[in-house]
Amino acid sequence: SINEARLYDRFQTMNRIGETERGGLHRLALSDEDKQARDLLVDWFKELHLTVRVDDLGNIYGIKPGSDPSAKPVVIGSHLDSVPKGGKYDGTLGVLAALEIVESLIDEGVSHEQPVIVVNFTNEEGARFPKPMISSGVLSGVYQTEDMFQLADDSGITLGDELKRIGYAGEKDFRLKDVDKFIELHIEQGPVLIEQQAAIGIVEGIQGLSWHEATFIGEADHAGPSPMSTRKDAAVGAFKAMTALHEWVLSLEDETSITFGRIAVEPHVVNVIPGKAVFSIDIRHPEKEILEQRIDKMKQILTETALRFDLDSQLEDLSFMPPAPFSQKLVQDLENVCLSEKVSYHRMYSGAGHDAMYMNRLAETIMLFVPSIDGKSHNEKEESRWEDIHQCVKVMYELVKKQL
Amino acid sequence: SINEARLYDRFQTMNRIGETERGGLHRLALSDEDKQARDLLVDWFKELHLTVRVDDLGNIYGIKPGSDPSAKPVVIGSHLDSVPKGGKYDGTLGVLAALEIVESLIDEGVSHEQPVIVVNFTNEEGARFPKPMISSGVLSGVYQTEDMFQLADDSGITLGDELKRIGYAGEKDFRLKDVDKFIELHIEQGPVLIEQQAAIGIVEGIQGLSWHEATFIGEADHAGPSPMSTRKDAAVGAFKAMTALHEWVLSLEDETSITFGRIAVEPHVVNVIPGKAVFSIDIRHPEKEILEQRIDKMKQILTETALRFDLDSQLEDLSFMPPAPFSQKLVQDLENVCLSEKVSYHRMYSGAGHDAMYMNRLAETIMLFVPSIDGKSHNEKEESRWEDIHQCVKVMYELVKKQL
Ligand SMILES: NC(=O)NCCC(=O)O
Ligand SMILES: NC(=O)NCCC(=O)O
Repeated sequence: SINEARLYDRFQTMNRIGETERGGLHRLALSDEDKQARDLLVDWFKELHLTVRVDDLGNIYGIKPGSDPSAKPVVIGSHLDSVPKGGKYDGTLGVLAALEIVESLIDEGVSHEQPVIVVNFTNEEGARFPKPMISSGVLSGVYQTEDMFQLADDSGITLGDELKRIGYAGEKDFRLKDVDKFIELHIEQGPVLIEQQAAIGIVEGIQGLSWHEATFIGEADHAGPSPMSTRKDAAVGAFKAMTALHEWVLSLEDETSITFGRIAVEPHVVNVIPGKAVFSIDIRHPEKEILEQRIDKMKQILTETALRFDLDSQLEDLSFMPPAPFSQKLVQDLENVCLSEKVSYHRMYSGAGHDAMYMNRLAETIMLFVPSIDGKSHNEKEESRWEDIHQCVKVMYELVKKQL
Repeated sequence: SINEARLYDRFQTMNRIGETERGGLHRLALSDEDKQARDLLVDWFKELHLTVRVDDLGNIYGIKPGSDPSAKPVVIGSHLDSVPKGGKYDGTLGVLAALEIVESLIDEGVSHEQPVIVVNFTNEEGARFPKPMISSGVLSGVYQTEDMFQLADDSGITLGDELKRIGYAGEKDFRLKDVDKFIELHIEQGPVLIEQQAAIGIVEGIQGLSWHEATFIGEADHAGPSPMSTRKDAAVGAFKAMTALHEWVLSLEDETSITFGRIAVEPHVVNVIPGKAVFSIDIRHPEKEILEQRIDKMKQILTETALRFDLDSQLEDLSFMPPAPFSQKLVQDLENVCLSEKVSYHRMYSGAGHDAMYMNRLAETIMLFVPSIDGKSHNEKEESRWEDIHQCVKVMYELVKKQL
């Protein structure tokens, strides 16, 4: 059914765009590389005579119409953007798997009432513009379009301006509205499936995640003549706070995770005691109530540490995404496909957020995971086996056909 | 003798160049602001008919010749560059005090054999180009000129290119060579003189300082699906190392100081566990042997912490400046001036490095400190009292006359 060589070839071609020296992928949202990748996807859509639509957020849709134009679509896909020096599977695989599935439907002459739509979502990663999954976030009403257009990268360039610059500021009318099902294939990005020796992950939902930015304010001063005891060192306060938070999370010995991915001190000079330190906090847990408790405790630790070092502190909430449990019906359908195809599977929660998290609010949703060797992701060494990939796309193809 | 109003006016005029909103100074070495400040100083030199010379490092000399052209000069001055958002007295005051002293010598018609030279040194701060006191370093043979020209700022622009761009790449022949005395007036930048209620600091020497750059290498990974227990988080390792170093230095309860002024993590994205963390270490002590012991122990703590977190670590030595004890004869001369002028003084070591540290290798050297209100420096709030400043310049004038 699925043409394995075709999928593999498209994948190689697509990932020459933004490929890094070490075989990873550097294709930041709305960069020149992202534009090239989008153009290639649109070319492929056109080759298959799909209807191409771009909405105001730059989401690209390749539509295979069904026999009933008023029927709600089945949407499949993922994202083409990457984190800086990321891996080549994250996102791209889900888009190209969806394309392969649609081409297989065409090859097989499968007739269906509902439209089938392949989607590429804009700025899923939240790496360049620091809010993830903004497109599905807007589609599901969680975010306001204007706020998203104002998101700026590190050099102050806004998402709205970049959409225009690369020619992907489309029309609001083309947005997805009434969606029947959303199905996303992705690499696991963690070690569970390899540990469980399962060929496919049936994703029952996504854990909750919360992003924050903490600012500690002290007093810049000269590194030489300032006695250690009277300093108001914002950096040392921040290091102690992060160390305390890290030790606290380890002591919980549960599924809570905490990450400090960004840190900046000012004025950032060797011989100046930093007067300001700003750092990000990414905290996660699969259960909403526990996640909220963790956030409260985190805030308490931050405030207490700042006070102990005689520093002012502020905490800005950047994003909160409650856990998203997926459609039990689709979980059951997927399990049945795995059983009839004799593919080993493992039911699990996703540690990473995906557009499926917000699409879940619009439509019955599910995800399929491909095992990640070493569990590494957001890293050039990200790796998966092609036999696993082909098997997962085959299973997804069967699942999609069942929905039509 | 000294014209207080003239000094005050020149100071106000000079510090309009690079003045910050909050009354501080942002005049990074070899920036457009530094060029403007240099041009103004050269204009003032010319108004006083001083001979103006610029050497290959961009050091500017305003020379008042003496009756014996072969006599070794008495050199006085400091630097016009600042740290980012620094204070207005640091450096500038020493240059303008020197200029005022030369103009007072002219006004008074003081005759002398030796040349008297006012100097402005290039890149004293080491803020933009991260090595401090490079000009006196080269003059005293500690640094190689070519290495200094290669120093790059955060955007990769080199010191050599910037010297040319702003028109201050002068001639090697004009460098200071045989110097009799070097005298530098500076603000204390610390709390000692205010605490001691002394009007002037007699600086007997400068403590040793050592700069390093530590790199911790882990493995970048996704913040979501990566279990806390198996991460190789370079940032957390770095925070723990800095926290451990800070606690160790506090536990010493002596004059050792440690500062982490710069930190950067990669890839610097909210949801990516940093695979790399780089931070600077500034460590100081007044005694060479103890400083060396401290550096050894610091290296041990760094290596142990990196190992404990399963991270690779490297340490690059950026600069080492052993303590510099000044001329006892000049200390005695200065004390005598203070006694005869009935000015309260305090003998002390400097916590900050100054060009006097390297000039001390070329010439009999001493520094005078003006009290710093609150002891704050490298900060826009840096402040001193003008009555203290005027008194200190007067004392320095008497000291300089004694040397001629
Ligand atoms: N898959 C992925 O990288 N999503 C971004 C949101 C997250 O950090 O989980
Ligand atoms: N005075 C001053 O800021 N000098 C720079 C070298 C140091 O950090 O002590």
